[in-house]
Order: sequence, then structure tokens, then C-alpha cells
Amino acid sequence: MSSQSVQQKKKIAIVGAGLVGALQACFMAEKGYHVEVYEMRDDIRKSEKVFGRSINLALSCRGKEALRMLGLEDEVTKNGIEMFGRMVHDYKGGTKFIPYGKENEAIMSIDRRKFNELLISAAESYSSVYINYCHKLVDCAFDRRELTFEKSETKELKTVKFDIVMGCDGAYSNLRFNIMKNTKLQYSQEYIPDRYMELRIPPNADGSFMMPKNYLHLWPRTTFMLIGLPNVPDHSFVMTLFAPYQIFESLDSDRKVIEFFRANFVDALEMMGEAFVTNAFRTLPPLPLVSVKCKPYNLEDYGVLLGDAAHAMVPFYGQGLNCGFEDLIVFNEFMEKYDHDFKKVLPEFSEYRSIDAQAMNDLAMRNYKEMKADVNSRLFILRKKLDNILYWMLPKTWVPLYTSVSFSRIRYHQCMANRDWQDKVINRAVVTLLCCTMAGLTYLGFNMGYFAKLNSRLAPWCSRVTEMINFK
Amino acid sequence: MSSQSVQQKKKIAIVGAGLVGALQACFMAEKGYHVEVYEMRDDIRKSEKVFGRSINLALSCRGKEALRMLGLEDEVTKNGIEMFGRMVHDYKGGTKFIPYGKENEAIMSIDRRKFNELLISAAESYSSVYINYCHKLVDCAFDRRELTFEKSETKELKTVKFDIVMGCDGAYSNLRFNIMKNTKLQYSQEYIPDRYMELRIPPNADGSFMMPKNYLHLWPRTTFMLIGLPNVPDHSFVMTLFAPYQIFESLDSDRKVIEFFRANFVDALEMMGEAFVTNAFRTLPPLPLVSVKCKPYNLEDYGVLLGDAAHAMVPFYGQGLNCGFEDLIVFNEFMEKYDHDFKKVLPEFSEYRSIDAQAMNDLAMRNYKEMKADVNSRLFILRKKLDNILYWMLPKTWVPLYTSVSFSRIRYHQCMANRDWQDKVINRAVVTLLCCTMAGLTYLGFNMGYFAKLNSRLAPWCSRVTEMINFK
Repeated sequence: MSSQSVQQKKKIAIVGAGLVGALQACFMAEKGYHVEVYEMRDDIRKSEKVFGRSINLALSCRGKEALRMLGLEDEVTKNGIEMFGRMVHDYKGGTKFIPYGKENEAIMSIDRRKFNELLISAAESYSSVYINYCHKLVDCAFDRRELTFEKSETKELKTVKFDIVMGCDGAYSNLRFNIMKNTKLQYSQEYIPDRYMELRIPPNADGSFMMPKNYLHLWPRTTFMLIGLPNVPDHSFVMTLFAPYQIFESLDSDRKVIEFFRANFVDALEMMGEAFVTNAFRTLPPLPLVSVKCKPYNLEDYGVLLGDAAHAMVPFYGQGLNCGFEDLIVFNEFMEKYDHDFKKVLPEFSEYRSIDAQAMNDLAMRNYKEMKADVNSRLFILRKKLDNILYWMLPKTWVPLYTSVSFSRIRYHQCMANRDWQDKVINRAVVTLLCCTMAGLTYLGFNMGYFAKLNSRLAPWCSRVTEMINFK
Repeated sequence: MSSQSVQQKKKIAIVGAGLVGALQACFMAEKGYHVEVYEMRDDIRKSEKVFGRSINLALSCRGKEALRMLGLEDEVTKNGIEMFGRMVHDYKGGTKFIPYGKENEAIMSIDRRKFNELLISAAESYSSVYINYCHKLVDCAFDRRELTFEKSETKELKTVKFDIVMGCDGAYSNLRFNIMKNTKLQYSQEYIPDRYMELRIPPNADGSFMMPKNYLHLWPRTTFMLIGLPNVPDHSFVMTLFAPYQIFESLDSDRKVIEFFRANFVDALEMMGEAFVTNAFRTLPPLPLVSVKCKPYNLEDYGVLLGDAAHAMVPFYGQGLNCGFEDLIVFNEFMEKYDHDFKKVLPEFSEYRSIDAQAMNDLAMRNYKEMKADVNSRLFILRKKLDNILYWMLPKTWVPLYTSVSFSRIRYHQCMANRDWQDKVINRAVVTLLCCTMAGLTYLGFNMGYFAKLNSRLAPWCSRVTEMINFK
């Protein structure tokens, strides 16, 4: 009881009411804290739907577990749809299915907006959570534990006090920028050459999906790709085109756009409709993709970065959200381990978690290449099959990378180390096989007299050398 | 004449009057521009000397050439002193000389403050240059081409217009931070685990140097090191201790400091004096070292980052200043190439120069290890000797890395590529030698009957296999 009342006196300020911010508000409220959330935008439950700025989410094991801990899993997943693997589309519209894992293993496609709305409602259901909308962070006085926000309607400045501040304000985190000005933060941001554009395949006239619904549809084209995720509310597919900005720049007329789509995504073009696609290219700017790493995640004993604010990653593994939600599970575990002593919780969390989030960040960048190019190669499919056979034979030892990342809670850095170990084993096996073959052939060669001529010429020299060094 | 008057109408705003900012003011004034420099600090020619915050500068080929282009080389170098190599001190005070290059090749040690004073005076000698002191950049409105400064005495805000803005405001560049907020900048900052502390060996009572003056004195101790550079104005040595912050933290009493110095730098301790050293550890905070990379260096056709603001590097190659000055030479060349058309000059300069500055940044990080550890190893000295022999035999092909970086204007990325190529050649030579030896021994072994027993056992199998596959 007394520890509970100490917590209630501590004021937690969460910057950002996106998915991670809203869920962390729930976690902290569950622990008995008073939580103020400050969100730059207006309440999305009331605001108009804007097309073209979202990438559908793929919820997998780690994300689901965080929801389960707060009793939110069912409510969220009934708004999603399972995807059991990649459905790869070739140039002519033919398809090939590559499963993600075992038969029943699937990731879940969920509408980002609907998901966020659910979590905001969940957070606001706690009496100790208050969400301040239209509050943009403009200044931090960390030494005085003060944040200053600008209210977007009135431009009025408001300064608030906090005990612990949590930055859940995404890849372009304002809180992180302020931390950078004040401390020695290890930091990197990398914009990849690709941009993305959101497109859409509508439902059929009868309201059904236009393509098989339980798959992530993928058009890999080496230097660019199109993906499509099923969307439950309206049975559409949220399509995303990823391509270097030079390609977007070159598609500067309706004719070029249509030619490009006909040459590369003929089936998708038919489903989207030419008018829709050309209109999208005329009106939507291709959006950038950034990868952010930093360390530490904590600001002494009074601040912490969570989710994209700490480790924004490229979206090619579908782990951005799952990694952010797992941050919250881990944070929760450290809160329990150190009995809410933030002097220990914050630095220990940072030390432990940054190793995993950085590994995931690197894996996402690796998958960027895999999705665009490798899924087309025979070697990639052969490796995938070999992995699955070894996984079946050695279910505890040989967990394929995608399985460990998406269908387990094995620490990300361990997933990466396992994969590197697997690569090494396979490479060594291949090299050993080659060496044995070579040695065998050489030996046969000797015994079959192929080296006889060489031998007879060198023999006199050999015996002379032998005599000289007195070997015998 | 008409092009000249166009230039005079363009207003160049330079943020920072450090070495690079002051020299760039001279370059732009020479080209006929009106230049306003904004410096956060007061005029250093009038301000009090602060001990403990500088690392002496090593001026080499690239830096000298920039000065020569403005007729400033003689004035600067008469305030410096040549260093022909590293004088490595062992634990007992014994020394060993490792030259930097050929007999006459030297880098120059120069007092940072004196150097900066000279360049500020040089800049102010142009009627078209005006330096505004105590002006701290607080905001940028790039779309309106406006910068806002806070005057440090009055806290008054002052907004100024510019045509081209040049960020020469160092590793913690405020201009760069503002660019980051507004554009897609590739960016990384890395604080290395080492900190540094400035110390000093005073001159002898008769005013002479306490150690041989024409060397960079070096006490490499694997995980930390002490360096000493001769200082002309007063014949002292500016000493810098580089060590992981854990070491600085552990030296928390006078006794521990003295023990540490006695064990590692006994000769230096004697010259500095125990009281001086313990006092330094009591009063000076160890300072951080940061490595910054970013790209692009330009902000469309109206802004550019130069020197440390674009590429702050760790100080272990003595190239930070030289790289910054070479930026200005290259910038000048692009100004001439594109006849002052900033639409071309700025992006082309960025594309060309960032490759080299990033390579130098990486080389500095490599040298960090070399200076601390490798100079003690036999392999390092052997390699150095081998490089010098090959350089003597192939003066155009085999230029040692240090020579190409410090005594030539070969592009930094080329210096790095050359070194990587040299490493590959040496590695292949060693591997080839080993393989030949192995093959020779095996052959001898066969002919001397060492494999006879093995042979007689396997022979029946061999002939069967041979028959089966019908080779004969």
C-alpha cells in the first residue's frame, strides 16, 4: 500500500499518443502511476481519415504478448487478419506461396488507425491517465524537470512539471532532439534511398477481397517492390510501393506511370485501376524511410525513450511495432525486478534493451534486401527449405531466423547470433565437402599415374634436396 | 567587372569564427563577397586565456597549402615548430624514434589560440569582412533566408538575412542541428569511450625545452596514452592524456593519480611536477571526443557545412584542421569550375568532398588504435620498415598511408584505398609463400616415401574405383 501511494505521487509524462505511447500509458496506469500524455495531433478518433500516409501493421508474437498482458489481445486481433506467408507475384501475374513458418504460424495484418483508436480508448479508460491533444513539445528544461508545449490552436505555451518523462514520439522524436542537445548521445539516422507510396486495391463489388486474403502479397522486382496487406474493416488491400526516389522522379507523367505498372505489376494495376494509380502519383508525395539508432535510451533516472523514438527501423521485417511493444514488456520486467527504483530501472533497461533493438534494426535493413531481391533467387528458396528441414530435425537448435524473430520472444540479438552461427555451419559444411572431394581426386590422380611425367622430372631434384638436408 | 559586382551584392553569412570560419571569410572576401561572420564567443584576442581545453594542432601539407593560397603560410608557420616523427617513451623513460616519413618530412605543432588570433586578424584586414562577436545562433528560417542570433550580453534577439550561409561552427554545430530538423540529413555522432585532459610540461628555468623539441612525444600504454607537442611561444609542451572515462573516474585521489603516473609516465611526471598533475585532476573535467559524419554538406543552393561542422573527427591523425582547410581549397576550386553558380557549386562540392572527409574520419578512428597499441608491437615497426623500403623502390606506387595523408594532397579516399590495396598485396604474398612451402614439403614427402604405408593400403581401393569409373 505504501509503495502504491509513492507511485501515485509520481507524475509520468508521456510524449506521444501513438501505439507505443498509448500502450505505455496503460502499463504505467496499471502500476498505479498518474500519467499525463501529450500528443501533438488532435484525437484521431474525431479527426478525418487521411489517405496515403500509413503502412499497414504486421502484429506478431512480441506485440501480441504485450497486448495480452493488459487484456487487450482479443479486442485488437478481432480487427485483424492472419497472413500465413508471402504470396509472390511474377511479372505475368502468376503466384508462388512461401510460408513464414510452420502451418499454423501467422502474422496479423491490422489497420494502423483502428489499432491506435483502440489503444487510446483503452488508455483513457484508466482514471489516472489524461491525454492532452494538440500539444507540441517545443522545449525541455531537464534540470528543472519541465517540458514546454505549444497548443496548436492558440499557439499558447504551457510548461508542465514531471518526475519521469517517456519519449514515445516516434522516429522524428522531439524529446530525443532535446536530449541530444544536452547529453552525450550516441546517435545515427540513415535515410535509405527508397521512398514509399501508399496505394489501394478496393474490395470487389460484393464486398469480398480481390486477392486471397490470408497472405502478404509481394511483387519483388530487384530494385523496387510492391507489397499488399489485407485490411479487415473494408476488405481492401493496403498496397505500398517501395522504390528509389529516382524511380518516383522519373514517373512524371500518367503515361510513364501506366507503362511502369504494366511492365512490372500488371495484375495489381488491373485491380487498382489505372485512374486510381495515376491520380495517386499526381497527388501523393513519395515519403522517406529512416533508420534511427541511439544509446543510451535513458536520461539519468528521469527520462527514457521507447519505440521508434529510440530505434526507428525500416519497415521490411514488420517488427517496428512489435519491437516497440516488447520495449514495454521489458521495461515492465525491470520495474518489477528493481521495485520501481528508477535510478536502477532506467539505465539497466537501456543497457539491456538497446542491444536487442539495434540487432532488430540491422535485421530489418538486411530484410530490405531479401524482400526486394533474394525471394526471387533459387538459392534463397533452397536455403529456406534446408532451414525448414533442419528445424524439423532439430527443433530446439536450428530455429530459422524469421521464425525466431516473428514467432518467439528469443532476444533479437540472439536471433541474429543464431543466424550468423547457422550461416557459418553451412559454409563450413560446404567448404569441407569441397576440400574432401578435391583431396580424393588428387589422391586418385597420383595413384592413376597422372603425375608420372612430372614425377620423373622432379625426382632427381628431390633426391638431391633430400640428401642435402639429410632427411634420411 | 559585372560578375564581381554581382558577388559583392551577395551576402555570405559564416557561422563561427574558429580557424575554418576565419579562413573561409578570407577566401570569400578574396572572391569579392561581402562576408558577415557570427561568433558565439567574444573576440579571443581580447579574452583571457583559459587553460585545459585545447589540443595542440598539427599542421601538415593540406593545411599549409590553404594558407599559402592566401599568403598566410609564413606568418603562421613562424609561430610553429616542426616535428619529424614520434618519440616513443617506454615505462622507464627510455625513448625510441619513429620517423613520419622521409628525412625532411615533418608536421608542424602550432598553438591553437595564437593561430586563431592570426586568422581573425587576417579576416578583419579585408574591408568586406565584418565579425560579429557574442552572437549565438538560436533559430533558422531557411525558407526566408533568415538567421536569428542572441547577443550574449543583452540577451537581445537579432534576425539577419543571408544569401549563402556557411556553417563553420564546429563539432556541435548549431547550424547543422537546424538543418537536421528541416531536411533529410544522413547523420551520425559517436562519442568514443575515451576522454582527454590537457596537462603541461613547463620550459626549463633558462627558457629552453625540457625534451627534444622536434618530435611528437608519445607514451602509448595499450588502453590509454599520453602525448606531448612542443609549443613555440613559451617552449613548454602541451600534454594530453587520452584514457577511457573509467580510468579518469578511478583516479579520485591525489595518491591514486600519482601512483598511476609513476607506473606509466614516470619521466613525464617528473617534468610536469606532482603538484601540477594532482591539481589538474582535482580541477579539470576530462573532456569528451566525438566523431561526426553527415551528408549532404549542402543545403540546396544556399547553405553549406565546412570543417568540423561537417565531419568532426577524433584527433588521432592530426588531420581535423588540415581536412577542414582542404575543404576550403576544394570549395574554392568548385567556385572557379562553376563560375560562382551556387546551384552547382554547393551540391557538387558536397558530393565530391564528403567521400574524402568520411574516409579521413575512418582513418582517424583507425589511428586511434594504432597510436595506443600498435606502435609498441614489432609487427607494426616491421610493417613500417617494409613500407619505407617499398616506397624507396616504388616511389610512385607504394606511398605509405601516413605519407599520403600528411605529406601529399592525394584525395583521402584514395589514400585509404591505396592502403587497403597494399594490405591485400602483402597478405597475398604471405599466403602464396606459405602455400608454395606447403606444396613443396608435400611433394618431397611423397617422393621420400612418407606416404608409402597409406599408399599401399589405399591402392587396391583406388584401382577398383578407377576400373568402375573406367578412367583408363
